[in-house]
Amino acid sequence: MGAGPGSGIRSGRGDDPGAGAAAPVRRLCVIGVGLIGGSFARALRAAGACAEIVGCGRDAAHLERARALGVIDRAEVDPARAVVDADVVMLAAPVGASGALLQAVAPVLRDDALISDAGSVKGSVLAAARAALGGRFPAFVPGHPIAGTERSGVEASSVDLFRGRCTVLTPTAETDARALARVRGLWEACGARVVEMDAAHHDRVFAAVSHLPHLLAYTLVDWIAARPDAAELFDFAGGGFRDFTRIASSDPVMWRDICTANAEALGAQLAEFAAALDAVLRAVRAGDAAALEALFARAKRARDRKVEAER
Amino acid sequence: MGAGPGSGIRSGRGDDPGAGAAAPVRRLCVIGVGLIGGSFARALRAAGACAEIVGCGRDAAHLERARALGVIDRAEVDPARAVVDADVVMLAAPVGASGALLQAVAPVLRDDALISDAGSVKGSVLAAARAALGGRFPAFVPGHPIAGTERSGVEASSVDLFRGRCTVLTPTAETDARALARVRGLWEACGARVVEMDAAHHDRVFAAVSHLPHLLAYTLVDWIAARPDAAELFDFAGGGFRDFTRIASSDPVMWRDICTANAEALGAQLAEFAAALDAVLRAVRAGDAAALEALFARAKRARDRKVEAER
Repeated sequence: MGAGPGSGIRSGRGDDPGAGAAAPVRRLCVIGVGLIGGSFARALRAAGACAEIVGCGRDAAHLERARALGVIDRAEVDPARAVVDADVVMLAAPVGASGALLQAVAPVLRDDALISDAGSVKGSVLAAARAALGGRFPAFVPGHPIAGTERSGVEASSVDLFRGRCTVLTPTAETDARALARVRGLWEACGARVVEMDAAHHDRVFAAVSHLPHLLAYTLVDWIAARPDAAELFDFAGGGFRDFTRIASSDPVMWRDICTANAEALGAQLAEFAAALDAVLRAVRAGDAAALEALFARAKRARDRKVEAER
Repeated sequence: MGAGPGSGIRSGRGDDPGAGAAAPVRRLCVIGVGLIGGSFARALRAAGACAEIVGCGRDAAHLERARALGVIDRAEVDPARAVVDADVVMLAAPVGASGALLQAVAPVLRDDALISDAGSVKGSVLAAARAALGGRFPAFVPGHPIAGTERSGVEASSVDLFRGRCTVLTPTAETDARALARVRGLWEACGARVVEMDAAHHDRVFAAVSHLPHLLAYTLVDWIAARPDAAELFDFAGGGFRDFTRIASSDPVMWRDICTANAEALGAQLAEFAAALDAVLRAVRAGDAAALEALFARAKRARDRKVEAER
């Protein structure tokens, strides 16, 4: 992976990070200690990049498991208490909660705190941060680690989830260069490669390659599950179906939030894809073997190339 | 897996198999020595169920590799020569070739030969067999092992591809009970569980759970590959995309044949799915978070149950 040729990408290191970019975090507050937040905490601790970790979430029992696992040092269900004295705050809750969480913590953040997030949609989070943080908006660094799996919860978190993977940061012109450099450094400490990109560009790219496939997988499984012969259909679904639908086992709340937060880009991509699918339906009905073979051969070449490039 | 509740399924052993059902094969002819044909040959040989194996295909170099690998004993590019003196003939070529192959071999088959196939579509193969075999049609046993992968070729074949998997047989009222029992015995010797089903029912079931997902995966990859920003999009496609599109690396000719041979059932399923997808598009555009969450939660439950049932 790496910076592609897209117009919105900045692959450089940005402006001079200034002093302190690589300083360890004294107190990290992770809001949402699930797969992503838990893995971020584990990786930073393992890298020696973080002295103390406060975990925050709505479910006290879940937080207690995170503490028992050593992922966090201290648990707080109240975000406004959790961020007290934290120098870095990482939002890793479903993106739909970002606005309310930022509003809750904004009045109590340390003056020099930086705030980042790990949501899969960036435009809506930037808008929420701008509204909630006011003059502190430059200290917000929006991010998206490309490292999810269909599993969720702190039990699924791991120290090396981000190793060798890409994290996209989508700063604005207002984003503080030191805050940006520090967040970049934290992701690099987790083993990730960091790419910068415009937020709107990010949301179009991930609508196509991530949000749309999730919608297709969810829709296919639900469409089958709703049929009277669902039990038999699932019985005869083989390994191809299992892999195709793996992402339909993803967290419904997380994906509800992604699909509503990125509704505009996702709706546009889905409509375009539906048109492509309609052309395929016409080819199937017309028995157009040549068109189908050409499509399948192009797709196989493209996918085989992608898989080859990842080796 | 096993016989589901569907109306078209017969899960019993059928009629009395009569003598000879379990007799080893003296000479097996496999037409199409790829993943499926090669694995069938390997598994029967390993089970001691087969004395001699003749492989047939259009590519002499490919057949020679199959011979060098010990998958077949003898290679023939001419189907009419390959089937001479064979007591069992297994068609494992792309389903579009079935008609021409059956016509080529019909005049030279041994009087007591039985013919079977491993195609993913059964209605079209039955029609081709009825036309090509005439009075010998009862000796034709249509089958479909549910065991493909996106890999193809004899190099991908293995002795245990069918172990613990299901093979569907779709006999007609005319199918000879001894032939049916013998083919069942061969698949069981390969380690497969055998289920019987009506051919039209089979084609509807697999249109929904196999052919449609393949079409979706192929269409998504081709739709992305055709865009000016394809390189960047593939760059940022993660593990979810890779699994979702694994089946888009399947053999284009095999899938061209499946989609044209099963055009009617596949077209109907695809049109139904497109309607479901359109409802999802409307929910995305309306920002209907509750509808999306409910859909995702239903799909996750259904898929998690299926995966759990397979353990």
